[in-house]
Amino acid sequence: MASVPRKPRIVIIGSGFGGLAAVKGLKGADAEVILIDRSNHHLFQPLLYQVATAALSPADIATATRALLRRQGNVSVVLAEAIGVDPSRRIVQTADGRDVAYDYLVLATGAAYSFFGKDEFAEHAQVLKSLGDALSIRHRLLTCFELAEQSADPAEIERLLTFVVVGAGPTGVEMAGTIAELARSSLKSDFRHIDPRSARIILCEAGPRVLGAYPERLSSYALAALGSLGVDVRLGQMVEVIDADGLVLGGTRIEAGNVIWCAGTQARPAAHWLAAEAARNGSVMVEPDCSIPGRPEIFAIGDVASCRDPASGKPLPGLAPVAKQQGYYVARVLSARLAGRPTPAPFRYRDFGTMAVIGRSRAVADFGWFRCTGFLAWLAWSLVHLMLLVDFRSRLSVYVNWSWAWFTYGRGARLLTMPVASAMRGQGRPPEKG
Amino acid sequence: MASVPRKPRIVIIGSGFGGLAAVKGLKGADAEVILIDRSNHHLFQPLLYQVATAALSPADIATATRALLRRQGNVSVVLAEAIGVDPSRRIVQTADGRDVAYDYLVLATGAAYSFFGKDEFAEHAQVLKSLGDALSIRHRLLTCFELAEQSADPAEIERLLTFVVVGAGPTGVEMAGTIAELARSSLKSDFRHIDPRSARIILCEAGPRVLGAYPERLSSYALAALGSLGVDVRLGQMVEVIDADGLVLGGTRIEAGNVIWCAGTQARPAAHWLAAEAARNGSVMVEPDCSIPGRPEIFAIGDVASCRDPASGKPLPGLAPVAKQQGYYVARVLSARLAGRPTPAPFRYRDFGTMAVIGRSRAVADFGWFRCTGFLAWLAWSLVHLMLLVDFRSRLSVYVNWSWAWFTYGRGARLLTMPVASAMRGQGRPPEKG
Repeated sequence: MASVPRKPRIVIIGSGFGGLAAVKGLKGADAEVILIDRSNHHLFQPLLYQVATAALSPADIATATRALLRRQGNVSVVLAEAIGVDPSRRIVQTADGRDVAYDYLVLATGAAYSFFGKDEFAEHAQVLKSLGDALSIRHRLLTCFELAEQSADPAEIERLLTFVVVGAGPTGVEMAGTIAELARSSLKSDFRHIDPRSARIILCEAGPRVLGAYPERLSSYALAALGSLGVDVRLGQMVEVIDADGLVLGGTRIEAGNVIWCAGTQARPAAHWLAAEAARNGSVMVEPDCSIPGRPEIFAIGDVASCRDPASGKPLPGLAPVAKQQGYYVARVLSARLAGRPTPAPFRYRDFGTMAVIGRSRAVADFGWFRCTGFLAWLAWSLVHLMLLVDFRSRLSVYVNWSWAWFTYGRGARLLTMPVASAMRGQGRPPEKG
Repeated sequence: MASVPRKPRIVIIGSGFGGLAAVKGLKGADAEVILIDRSNHHLFQPLLYQVATAALSPADIATATRALLRRQGNVSVVLAEAIGVDPSRRIVQTADGRDVAYDYLVLATGAAYSFFGKDEFAEHAQVLKSLGDALSIRHRLLTCFELAEQSADPAEIERLLTFVVVGAGPTGVEMAGTIAELARSSLKSDFRHIDPRSARIILCEAGPRVLGAYPERLSSYALAALGSLGVDVRLGQMVEVIDADGLVLGGTRIEAGNVIWCAGTQARPAAHWLAAEAARNGSVMVEPDCSIPGRPEIFAIGDVASCRDPASGKPLPGLAPVAKQQGYYVARVLSARLAGRPTPAPFRYRDFGTMAVIGRSRAVADFGWFRCTGFLAWLAWSLVHLMLLVDFRSRLSVYVNWSWAWFTYGRGARLLTMPVASAMRGQGRPPEKG
């Protein structure tokens, strides 16, 4: 028997937008592709806040990675947590003690929340990265209304019905707007002892405006829209303390039942694994072809990579489209290398615009050549997000749920599946979900 | 100011089919109605096995009780666990230390699983009563396939891919059939190292046939249908041991990754609370008007009540329609008493038939005057269950998911939202969900 030469092995860590795009881009490549992720699903993060606020179910925005890649015969999916890389031995180490050898490695491990050095915040602030996080936030939100209904103490009721969202980027704005709608519309007739409309929703931001990365006109619209939803926006104020009962904001104590942290992200520790040069947010500096300097066989894409736009010289934002385009780009680079073709031109981000939604029927959209606000932007946001969902079933299910919510203000996913006590115990950051 | 006489207070414990029907039947009654339940949702239990097998999401079959009763002004919903009743003081005690006074009490607390005295089974067998239970079973099912994919030990792979369902009543038959379809169809192309079609699904039953309460012809059909799905049915065999690695069945040891207990139920401890006479399964004996002997102000309905059919003298089965009809009946009795009208005629169950489904396109239906099997019965089952879902949103969402699954064999809810280790640690009965 003639010995068959081993196919080159490409290991991709992370099944987010970047990693999945890289895998799909390698469809048909003459290589063994291994996708490692500690979760078994691809998550459509832009709609995660809707799971946290009981509008959607986890299955509406997450799809089993194996099911997505079923027909791509050159890929194996490995459910494991990568905890390190040994670039000299070309091995990825996993938490369950396995070593996965690679010829080429694509790091697409994304970002985690950053508390800007105040790691003690992690104990009491809730974050929104995984389905588990979203379900924890949902449990706690709904539980606060239930506990307030049962309480006879006005101060405690006020505390339980105070919801603070930290950080007024797109996620924070969307989260605060949706919580306001939950309290003012969806729940308004559901209680007998409290009036959910009396809930305080505070959105605080250290910077001077909401949606700081957007054009000023859109920020002003978003601020006004948040105001009309009854969100109390506090700009230019830093969070100093977060504890079990609330927080200190710009020197003022606020008693709050929920503190949701949407303020900053930090790349996962890939730069550290490689002892490579890192940007301030921990992401690893990459070459124009997304490879690591001095390690042409290792690539980093998405939030874990620090990549500058060749035209403007500015760092690319931590957005899904950047990760996706980088994933497909790296797949092209790898395919070219495997086939002995020349490397494609350096990566260039094609910016189709950004959008953020502020509750029912209101949004802002910045397409560069065209900016809009209000219903038109909301319609664009809804259509784009429906189309971006990864499979037809999710699209249909999200469409049904959105239509239902739009006409009735109802929320289908108002479910507590764990005891009240554990929802409140879990105020702080839940253990990382696998 | 003239003193306003206090309205009579009706406390209903349990928001299942019986309790919810009683509350709805009291719409417009001149009384203060309080519904106590430890979960915040009404659960459509007949489809719970589909959540456990990743076909549906929790929100598809559960609806927030408050939302269902929003427009019924005479009802307050209390999220609390009832732990006792003091009939002499007319008080319900809750786990969080509150006393809820009543003038009339309706016990609709349902049933829990019974291990027929072998309580040590509870540690390792999984049960299916709450959304939390269903999610635990789903996590463990999916995790077994993932662990098998990673294992290099053939014996361990065989153990992980052995699924034992104990009890061949409707739930056991539905569960075994659906797991077989999951392994043989939905997952068949998703793994690279194992063949999910090699999974063993064993359905064991102490009695002589499957669906023992159904006519023999339907049992035979169900047995054949299970066989064609590749379910290994073992009749007349008792479970002797259940431990962390499997079970002993009729003297034979079977190594198994999952043991799912669908074998028997035991009424929740209402009879014990009242020191009233209990049937063998713990349910409380009731008068023809569903009240407790000697306590005309206390009623018991559904699985917690032991009620005989006045015509046949046989005990009524523990089915949703019985509970629902009793709930509406007790509401009529209470309304009559409050209005000083004579008590309605004794409760009489109107049996519209029973059905059980065995996987895609196969079912059995017994309408008394008409029995059928196969596709026709499956169609009847699907339509009836869609219509019985409590709100339009759920109906639409279940319809979308079923249509999707029917055409593609796909399962939308294949999500692990907790780490693998905790899914396996939680082999046994999870803590009771609130």
